[in-house]
Amino acid sequence: MKKVKKKIKAAILIIGNEVLSGRTQDLNVSFIAGWLNKNCGISVDEVRIIPDVEKTIIFNVLDLSNKFKYVFTTGGIGPTHDDITSLSISKAFKKKYDFNKEAYKILEKYYGITNFNDGRKKMAKMPNGSSLIYNPSSAAPGFKIKNVLCLPGVPTILKSMIGNTKKFLIKGKVVHDKNINLITVESNISLELEKIQNSYANKNVNIGSYPFFKLGKVGVCIVLRSDSKTALTKCFNDIKNLVNLKKIKIFK
Amino acid sequence: MKKVKKKIKAAILIIGNEVLSGRTQDLNVSFIAGWLNKNCGISVDEVRIIPDVEKTIIFNVLDLSNKFKYVFTTGGIGPTHDDITSLSISKAFKKKYDFNKEAYKILEKYYGITNFNDGRKKMAKMPNGSSLIYNPSSAAPGFKIKNVLCLPGVPTILKSMIGNTKKFLIKGKVVHDKNINLITVESNISLELEKIQNSYANKNVNIGSYPFFKLGKVGVCIVLRSDSKTALTKCFNDIKNLVNLKKIKIFK
Repeated sequence: MKKVKKKIKAAILIIGNEVLSGRTQDLNVSFIAGWLNKNCGISVDEVRIIPDVEKTIIFNVLDLSNKFKYVFTTGGIGPTHDDITSLSISKAFKKKYDFNKEAYKILEKYYGITNFNDGRKKMAKMPNGSSLIYNPSSAAPGFKIKNVLCLPGVPTILKSMIGNTKKFLIKGKVVHDKNINLITVESNISLELEKIQNSYANKNVNIGSYPFFKLGKVGVCIVLRSDSKTALTKCFNDIKNLVNLKKIKIFK
Repeated sequence: MKKVKKKIKAAILIIGNEVLSGRTQDLNVSFIAGWLNKNCGISVDEVRIIPDVEKTIIFNVLDLSNKFKYVFTTGGIGPTHDDITSLSISKAFKKKYDFNKEAYKILEKYYGITNFNDGRKKMAKMPNGSSLIYNPSSAAPGFKIKNVLCLPGVPTILKSMIGNTKKFLIKGKVVHDKNINLITVESNISLELEKIQNSYANKNVNIGSYPFFKLGKVGVCIVLRSDSKTALTKCFNDIKNLVNLKKIKIFK
């Protein structure tokens, strides 16, 4: 995996009426974002969720493909009529939507010649010139075309495939994090926290503050993120000093 | 609530580094989308998740505000330095970012004059000309400016406030749904399903097909959605006929 010393930004495009309607809770965004940062030093800077509508898919694939180093799509590469991601991306990039020979062979072997019906064959169709993203759990591969990597929507299958995207990616700087849970409210520490954030603005440390309600306790989770472990530790110590100074209890 | 006989489309803009980094699992999209359809006949047609970056918030608020009837934002309206939604939206709409007198009074009363510190006062600042969205759980209100409705990111608080957005919304056509879980695989029914979908394309019925893995069984959930209950029932019967014809078991 080639590595560069800079921030690499990606976008995720979730394609599916079922997520937009509220019927299905998306689980792929947090998984892909966490995996990309930890394993590839790639940060997800935008996510869009859109319906199974061809012109909407085409617009968003092209828009995000221009704006980001990589685009990960999920959903719409199965055998049914509402699976239109592969066809739409072919149109977006003006590539022929056709059988990929390798994908065809994989699926034919998986189902057996007699059971390899037209619905199943559809899963071997993709933009001409795509590279396959292998699927160890249910055979039907995803694909990469230009800087767009297409994965299925089913979380368990997606998880089994994500490692196979690695060979297509350039590794950037991993963002490390540290966090501390405090038994207090945000407004008790907001001014001091802002001062600490300002003093680290040029050192690439990002401080996030998130209220939580756990086991009947109200608290704040402070999350520090940085690609520099040294700056991260220094900032974390500043936060701990603030916590001691204000006599705030830590939630464990 | 005023009612119109057409489809009303909204977008959701999730503002927060914590969701993009994969640290926090978003739960607001499915809740808001489901609530809007059921209670207001409004469908969510796009979701974006973006970081706490002023220029990114400004761009996306204006873009979605132009494209959709309503935009719901979540996150970034608390007391800390990373809460920049209210300021960014003020800049987007070229409105003064200032104390809202009513919000100030609500918060002063809630915290008491002596505990009403600068962090807490910040939560009373918003674009000039905003209407308040009252918050029965933790006082700090959301706001509506133009067609943008701003809610907090904490799901429990958001849920307690959503009913208070209703007075700002025009009611559209509710989309009804019916679903059936089948013990089969998608590729076994994909061709017949496509035929049924094609025969209902002009009758506004949308058929979705989603594989599932439950209790060791592989299955397909067929979801029908339509604003016409009659068309929905007719299409559902066609699906049931297909299921009988193919002798497919139903998963209960």
